[in-house]
Amino acid sequence: MIDLDKMGQGARQTARVLAGLGRTDKDRVINRLADLLDTQQARVLAANDRDIALAEADGLAPALIDRLRLNTDRLAGIMTDLRRVSQLEDPVGTIFDRQVLPNGLRIHKQRVPIGVLGVIYESRPNVTLDVASLALKSGNAVILRGGKETLHTNRALVSLIHEALADCKLPVEAVQFINSVERAHVLALLHMHDTVDMLIPRGGAGLHQFCRENSRIPVIMGGIGVCHLFVDESADLGAALDVIHNAKTQRPTVCNALDTVLVHQKIARDFIPALIAHLEGDGVCFRLDPGAFRCAAGSPDSSEAVTFADAEDFGREWLSLTLGVGVVADLTQAIEHIHAHSTGHSDGILTQDNAQAELFVQAVDSAAVYVNASTRFTDGGQLGLGAEVAISTQRLHARGPMALEALTTYKWVIWGENHTRPD
Amino acid sequence: MIDLDKMGQGARQTARVLAGLGRTDKDRVINRLADLLDTQQARVLAANDRDIALAEADGLAPALIDRLRLNTDRLAGIMTDLRRVSQLEDPVGTIFDRQVLPNGLRIHKQRVPIGVLGVIYESRPNVTLDVASLALKSGNAVILRGGKETLHTNRALVSLIHEALADCKLPVEAVQFINSVERAHVLALLHMHDTVDMLIPRGGAGLHQFCRENSRIPVIMGGIGVCHLFVDESADLGAALDVIHNAKTQRPTVCNALDTVLVHQKIARDFIPALIAHLEGDGVCFRLDPGAFRCAAGSPDSSEAVTFADAEDFGREWLSLTLGVGVVADLTQAIEHIHAHSTGHSDGILTQDNAQAELFVQAVDSAAVYVNASTRFTDGGQLGLGAEVAISTQRLHARGPMALEALTTYKWVIWGENHTRPD
Repeated sequence: MIDLDKMGQGARQTARVLAGLGRTDKDRVINRLADLLDTQQARVLAANDRDIALAEADGLAPALIDRLRLNTDRLAGIMTDLRRVSQLEDPVGTIFDRQVLPNGLRIHKQRVPIGVLGVIYESRPNVTLDVASLALKSGNAVILRGGKETLHTNRALVSLIHEALADCKLPVEAVQFINSVERAHVLALLHMHDTVDMLIPRGGAGLHQFCRENSRIPVIMGGIGVCHLFVDESADLGAALDVIHNAKTQRPTVCNALDTVLVHQKIARDFIPALIAHLEGDGVCFRLDPGAFRCAAGSPDSSEAVTFADAEDFGREWLSLTLGVGVVADLTQAIEHIHAHSTGHSDGILTQDNAQAELFVQAVDSAAVYVNASTRFTDGGQLGLGAEVAISTQRLHARGPMALEALTTYKWVIWGENHTRPD
Repeated sequence: MIDLDKMGQGARQTARVLAGLGRTDKDRVINRLADLLDTQQARVLAANDRDIALAEADGLAPALIDRLRLNTDRLAGIMTDLRRVSQLEDPVGTIFDRQVLPNGLRIHKQRVPIGVLGVIYESRPNVTLDVASLALKSGNAVILRGGKETLHTNRALVSLIHEALADCKLPVEAVQFINSVERAHVLALLHMHDTVDMLIPRGGAGLHQFCRENSRIPVIMGGIGVCHLFVDESADLGAALDVIHNAKTQRPTVCNALDTVLVHQKIARDFIPALIAHLEGDGVCFRLDPGAFRCAAGSPDSSEAVTFADAEDFGREWLSLTLGVGVVADLTQAIEHIHAHSTGHSDGILTQDNAQAELFVQAVDSAAVYVNASTRFTDGGQLGLGAEVAISTQRLHARGPMALEALTTYKWVIWGENHTRPD
């Protein structure tokens, strides 16, 4: 029997303990967890084998099964990630915006943990450790609700987290796990506004929509990326092919993978056939708007992998090797297209004209705006945050990759000399 | 017929225009608005007279009617506030966290407007102008929904805002007003997550709860303050009386007014009778816990204004001249009481012992934590922000008084040289 209220109250009380910890204590438990992951690999891998066997019996697609799988290499990677989190600066306690007001009041802001996080996630088991380590390092308690496909793996990982906490004399309520796959628990968690301060869903659009419609806790919406690259007339076309190839094919199932290429009309006739030739060997299928299709049709490289785009294809998150291609008249039309179809995750321009790049950067208001780089860099690890708990595409609190600082808030501290407010 | 979808789409389109404005354009419209408020006072005051007459006919309490009332003095104050907003720094466009990654990617964050704000508020008509001016200055579009008590006043104010926008060749959709008091519009607004980015309710606990339960847009919860002052054994007792008097009586109906005084047991026998004597002349009623009552009963000043506190009295936002008083064994017990009963708005300690003050500041995690000052300072204007759109008691995005910076978010800007992500 799972008592969510009790979990929430335990998390709330523990959050106060965690908020008072110094960096040393927090790093110790994270490193202890990495040690345990090393010495107790067999336990974790056995649990993971059980999840894999169940997934295979359920007929899950091989690509999805691969996402669930742990092995010694992947565990070694996770251990490295944990030790990297332990080396990150601790944002808690940082003082900023210090000032003395004309009336003599001395004020500053001090960074403090958010408090209690709720994280609802699907499939990949490394999320359990990413989230737990970032939460602990930033002094937050967390309630985890993983997907059914990794239930056994998550149980094993959480028992190691609890062991690490106990070894370091910290309350195990710091990281709690909803050990069940009943959907009712998700809804109940979304209503726990008295004990949970922030809700992070990590999964598909359906999960996000469910959270938006049902949560009474502030939700971090994110992780849905309809990503664009605009190839300007001045782009280095050879380099553009490589960047697009990387953005589309390096890991097509993730949110920062490229969905749509927009090509300046002046170069479309040369570039689009080259683009198709460069990517089709890797299995990329192309959905072309009429302008792009005209350019492709004239090319000997056009093939069955090249079809007309439907009306809804622009604005679709492919999560596969499909790529939308459109021709635009100019920068302005590219920006209009992005405003109409982007989810505000990652959008970029490929150009050798700095003025055009600047105009693009100012006009496009996505969480990550790129000039001459692959959209695949929108990732906490890649952008210097060490790790991430989510990639926010909403506008409140934090945008883009979220890590330690995004798991904190601040309090105002006001020192007076018996100041009273005049009428 | 009010078409909320059309309002939302107009706001969304206009937000893009506002996001691109420089400071000069934004200040011009705010100053133009102040000018119009000066030259067209008669129109505003006539509309306000109509609201006041209706409120009197409805039998509204005099204190509430006073909150609705505008007069030349109050209008002059509002004009001063507008001109002050025009003088504030514009946070939009600020670049921060600039760095070059080891792989050569150059990244920074750039401050941008939130986009479209929805603000639902009750009574005081100055909110219309505070919110509109802060929204415009920070480059946001806003949809306003005021209370029925100020419907005519708000119509007059919004028509001046539109005149100012038109005079400055800016789209009037920047500030839109739901010209109706139908509750159904509030619910509809809460569902407009495609066009509204942030929802700010300003009103009582009922409005906040309604928004929490029904909004699909991120909501800023706030404005409910159960505020505490702890009088430590080392406090300067004379000064403590003045600070408490100010925090309780200077404006008892607002969220940062004092609700509970906690007194260290070592000074309770002297301090509590003095507290009663100092405040009862101003009409303050006291609700005492048993420990405090024992101290008061022995005092010649004890009176009918002094009664036992009910179980729920601690944790109640009085919004009146009632004051809870409790005796605590020590700092730790004071902190425990605050954790149990505070809404996390404004809580403070009165002490001459810096070590105790530091312990209090670290342990109490309210939006504003005070040492030797009245809780009445939790206010954007008082804490150097120039004005405020809300006082947040939630933990995401912004805490405490929210003004220009809290109406912005940021985007990540990443410049590469055709960077691709390695496997």
